[in-house]
Amino acid sequence: MTTQIRFTAPMLNTLIVGASGYTGAELATYVNRHPHMNITALTVSAQSSDAGKLISDLHPQLKGIVDLPLQPMADISAFAHNVDVVFLATAHEVSHDLAPQFLAAGCVVFDLSGAYRVNNPDFYTRYYGFTHQHPQWLEQAVYGLAEWEHGALKEAQLIAVPGCYPTAAQLALKPLIEEGLLDLTQWPVINATSGVSGAGRKAALGNSFCEVSLQPYGLFTHRHQPEIASHLGAEVVFTPHLGNFPRGILETITCRLKPGVTHGQVAACYQQAYEDKPLVRLYDTGVPALKNVVGLPFCDIGFAVQDTHLIVVATEDNLLKGAAAQAIQCMNIRFDFAETQSLI
Amino acid sequence: MTTQIRFTAPMLNTLIVGASGYTGAELATYVNRHPHMNITALTVSAQSSDAGKLISDLHPQLKGIVDLPLQPMADISAFAHNVDVVFLATAHEVSHDLAPQFLAAGCVVFDLSGAYRVNNPDFYTRYYGFTHQHPQWLEQAVYGLAEWEHGALKEAQLIAVPGCYPTAAQLALKPLIEEGLLDLTQWPVINATSGVSGAGRKAALGNSFCEVSLQPYGLFTHRHQPEIASHLGAEVVFTPHLGNFPRGILETITCRLKPGVTHGQVAACYQQAYEDKPLVRLYDTGVPALKNVVGLPFCDIGFAVQDTHLIVVATEDNLLKGAAAQAIQCMNIRFDFAETQSLI
Amino acid sequence: MTTQIRFTAPMLNTLIVGASGYTGAELATYVNRHPHMNITALTVSAQSSDAGKLISDLHPQLKGIVDLPLQPMADISAFAHNVDVVFLATAHEVSHDLAPQFLAAGCVVFDLSGAYRVNNPDFYTRYYGFTHQHPQWLEQAVYGLAEWEHGALKEAQLIAVPGCYPTAAQLALKPLIEEGLLDLTQWPVINATSGVSGAGRKAALGNSFCEVSLQPYGLFTHRHQPEIASHLGAEVVFTPHLGNFPRGILETITCRLKPGVTHGQVAACYQQAYEDKPLVRLYDTGVPALKNVVGLPFCDIGFAVQDTHLIVVATEDNLLKGAAAQAIQCMNIRFDFAETQSLI
Amino acid sequence: MTTQIRFTAPMLNTLIVGASGYTGAELATYVNRHPHMNITALTVSAQSSDAGKLISDLHPQLKGIVDLPLQPMADISAFAHNVDVVFLATAHEVSHDLAPQFLAAGCVVFDLSGAYRVNNPDFYTRYYGFTHQHPQWLEQAVYGLAEWEHGALKEAQLIAVPGCYPTAAQLALKPLIEEGLLDLTQWPVINATSGVSGAGRKAALGNSFCEVSLQPYGLFTHRHQPEIASHLGAEVVFTPHLGNFPRGILETITCRLKPGVTHGQVAACYQQAYEDKPLVRLYDTGVPALKNVVGLPFCDIGFAVQDTHLIVVATEDNLLKGAAAQAIQCMNIRFDFAETQSLI
Repeated sequence: MTTQIRFTAPMLNTLIVGASGYTGAELATYVNRHPHMNITALTVSAQSSDAGKLISDLHPQLKGIVDLPLQPMADISAFAHNVDVVFLATAHEVSHDLAPQFLAAGCVVFDLSGAYRVNNPDFYTRYYGFTHQHPQWLEQAVYGLAEWEHGALKEAQLIAVPGCYPTAAQLALKPLIEEGLLDLTQWPVINATSGVSGAGRKAALGNSFCEVSLQPYGLFTHRHQPEIASHLGAEVVFTPHLGNFPRGILETITCRLKPGVTHGQVAACYQQAYEDKPLVRLYDTGVPALKNVVGLPFCDIGFAVQDTHLIVVATEDNLLKGAAAQAIQCMNIRFDFAETQSLI
Repeated sequence: MTTQIRFTAPMLNTLIVGASGYTGAELATYVNRHPHMNITALTVSAQSSDAGKLISDLHPQLKGIVDLPLQPMADISAFAHNVDVVFLATAHEVSHDLAPQFLAAGCVVFDLSGAYRVNNPDFYTRYYGFTHQHPQWLEQAVYGLAEWEHGALKEAQLIAVPGCYPTAAQLALKPLIEEGLLDLTQWPVINATSGVSGAGRKAALGNSFCEVSLQPYGLFTHRHQPEIASHLGAEVVFTPHLGNFPRGILETITCRLKPGVTHGQVAACYQQAYEDKPLVRLYDTGVPALKNVVGLPFCDIGFAVQDTHLIVVATEDNLLKGAAAQAIQCMNIRFDFAETQSLI
Repeated sequence: MTTQIRFTAPMLNTLIVGASGYTGAELATYVNRHPHMNITALTVSAQSSDAGKLISDLHPQLKGIVDLPLQPMADISAFAHNVDVVFLATAHEVSHDLAPQFLAAGCVVFDLSGAYRVNNPDFYTRYYGFTHQHPQWLEQAVYGLAEWEHGALKEAQLIAVPGCYPTAAQLALKPLIEEGLLDLTQWPVINATSGVSGAGRKAALGNSFCEVSLQPYGLFTHRHQPEIASHLGAEVVFTPHLGNFPRGILETITCRLKPGVTHGQVAACYQQAYEDKPLVRLYDTGVPALKNVVGLPFCDIGFAVQDTHLIVVATEDNLLKGAAAQAIQCMNIRFDFAETQSLI
Repeated sequence: MTTQIRFTAPMLNTLIVGASGYTGAELATYVNRHPHMNITALTVSAQSSDAGKLISDLHPQLKGIVDLPLQPMADISAFAHNVDVVFLATAHEVSHDLAPQFLAAGCVVFDLSGAYRVNNPDFYTRYYGFTHQHPQWLEQAVYGLAEWEHGALKEAQLIAVPGCYPTAAQLALKPLIEEGLLDLTQWPVINATSGVSGAGRKAALGNSFCEVSLQPYGLFTHRHQPEIASHLGAEVVFTPHLGNFPRGILETITCRLKPGVTHGQVAACYQQAYEDKPLVRLYDTGVPALKNVVGLPFCDIGFAVQDTHLIVVATEDNLLKGAAAQAIQCMNIRFDFAETQSLI
């Protein structure tokens, strides 16, 4: 690609598309606080009943902090010029269509949907139900698992921010797999429980207060399973659950070590992978609880070993390290800001 | 009215109309357990997407207990014959239309909506937004505040079961007002907090898990205020709140005693009113917590006095003493069963 | 043993020892409701600060239903005579000591602790930290996994009611293992989440409202793992979690089918095991949610299959099918009452 | 007093006493983030079992952010020198004793207990059960209701940060009373519900997850009632409730306007009081929900008027505007930093 990246330092003009949801509100909070970013506009679809409202009408916690309107965006023309950075907090199909337009306009695009996460068009036919129209961008997109893609992120124009479940799962498993510590003939079993905000901000009976209780869903059919397997290069059993809390994800991952692998080797493997990674917190002893990360940009990881059995526990805030904070982290890396700028 | 009540003892054939909601599920549970009642049918509106499903598909806790289908009811003809008792767990306007039809068919009707609660057609024009078409039934309807209407209930054909908030408020205030203990020039202040099930079983953003938190609503405009005031014959300030729990109502009622009224007089007043009323539980010391009544058919009442200030705390399960259990209690009284039959 | 069982039908005089806790309150509720049982006494340890209080002071939901005092029990002499049935809702060590005394007095004993669950004294040395003094009773004790021990229960004097986690895990796995459908070289992975009531009624920082959030605990070290493995005759990985809800357990069990085993075979296996077992509810499609069983005596089971991977979801109320309801179910079987008497 | 205030700008050396609790953790977070403050030490009582642990062991959300040890403090000698600012997050009696010692050492003291809130020694005899030994400091202490005490705060050595309930109550009522809009012959009725963190970080049955449910407590006897009344110069009925949420306070205040006072006058009154006060957010329409402020330093205020009846709703995070954030706000004012520095 020959598109020029326009970067008018020190302040990046920033557009948040699909700003009405929970992730949009978190992005707006981070960008507003960032010393090198301006919010140029917040947009929603032209059909949205939220168009014209203030973001703080929908998310009253932002009152007095970010009181900008949600502007209806019928097409990108009125919004793309003079914008450096675009966050797409939109549905997969919408991101699929919008990203190339913003890229063509010279923006750096951080897509929080699944539209550019797997470099294989067949993946979209099979798991997302649409034919991908932009295989060239699919090829160029950098998968924003930030701790593992520092180098590629620094050059990226299109960053596909990983899904909430895959972020924790991969941060937990990738070091072990890269180091060859696991016996992968026995698939790792990922039991993951997410807060209700993972289902988005919408009226739905299944999200209603009286209907929510701990429950597995999407057994063997959730799209995050192939996302995880594809990027890890290893099969896994992935079972998501709905939890009775608003936000956060906790994953308990049971796997098999190769014979002879010790607790110490596992600890050293994690240490090496994440010693200079400020948003992964390792536990020397014990495992994290969900509350340790709610409202924070971290992924916390702890584990226990018995013989060849290994249980890893990883937890994150699904809206933060699982979405908005990781997007900002990628942006910080992309533009050479401190990796945790405005996140901690 | 000359309509004959048909009563084929010992088993009452029972119809539950609008059985898909939370109150419907509680009614079905009680009726199924009742030794003198049969469930003849459960119905939903003919347009409902729940038509044809089992009630236990919607309310899985009923699986294996009540697995009957929710039948679409376009008109009453297919359902009214051979039915002794009808529970209307329907919207106000629907109850308004259906009740007279079932009454004409000789059924005893327990209406859990607001359609027949206040014996004054103007009330409906003003607070419910429709012109009441059945003033003769409005006049005959017995208000099913069970502890206070034993006599009238025994003869009633149409019982208007009180609203959830008004039940607790009136059980708390009525003895004091009847006994003349309150200085009503200072309006009692009723602060009430209800679980989310009070809003019904439906998809709505305001009921969604991530949106619910403690919040007042309907300040000075809730329809239960005039229902309470009308039946008490006294003005009150009524402020409902949405609470972050699925079920239960707790009301904290602050009022002014007439000069010289003592703690002992208040206690004696309650004792006299409720000593032989099994579903009101009085606290000699302290006040009840919400959890004391959740899942149970009681209204619990406690109070504290300081000088001329009186605080009464009343709590109930909004779906039970505030709806289904009170309807069954009224039915038990109406048909001379033990008042608590199948409730405890 | 030659001790005679004393059974003064039709009413069983019943003692609940350790009645102050959550399980005690549930037992008292069931026994009070049972047409063939009397509560002879409720006891607590002689040192307990709850001694002398009413059970309804501690558990106000029982007010007006069971208002009996919690009597201090220094030794069994004042309580054992004229008692037919004893429920021990006591600590393991206490049950270990008390059960033989009540048995010697001719009572039928239902022990809800772990003291008599595994017929192997070494188990207690290793996992419970004490030397079992009553190996002869350990041998005679019947493990009260009710659906699987109907025959033995009918003759039992000492019934060791299974732990909360093991009940759901075994009901889910036992049919599959008995039928030989699983490839057990890959250990079943049991991820289980329990409500906070599983930790008992006590002041503890870890149980306090602000400290509780979803969190694994006891990795590779929980005593329910060997209880499960011992009774199943198969090793498992068992990972308990604390959940942010008061009651209920949900277990997601991932296992490997033998090659060629089909979804239909799994379904038929469950059907055969539980078709005439009223307290296990099988799901033809989908899997249960926690709320389906809270407050109810059931264990609900559903599953999904993909190739040789099987995920079974089992859920129960930890205080009911995981404790009090299963104890009553065993008692009903023991004394030839209907299996669900007073439970549904 | 002639004590010199030592101020080594630009960095204030800061001591947090009683840092193990929920408020301590919030203070540590704020101070750590503040560009003009250093944490010199975090202390706990010399007897505390937490002594020697890291604050992030107790509050794992601080891991990697503040990992300082909780140092046992037997007396102030090892801690008072070279410290500019002391926050006392200690029990009333402890603050009562410590504050004068730190003041004598030249520190500016922000006391979050009740020990110096009311300038009347009798208050302590009556409501706190001890005889106040430091009436001269009681007289000099500035009550840190920040929006109302800007001037006095700038000179203060001892700041008594208001209680959690009184902050919201006074912010809501003080403008109306100062402006003379209320008919105070009818006492304002304050119904307040607090999250469980208000009870502190400790093992207590009443705080345990299974025991908490919405419940009034301390009727007519809570010490915050006289604190409110004393500072407002007006009597109120104050009824606190425990709510089933970890943090936040919502107060619904029902009062009587003087005849003729309009909605517009009430709005103007609030506008005038708080137009340049960044931590009070006024609602033009509607009233706030609890979630609007959780995790944030604001007090949100909305109201409704009908005839002479006024309902004001005020909400805040009890640990922030009700404790730590207000302490930092007072400190910011005291040392001429931006009022919201490190708070937003």
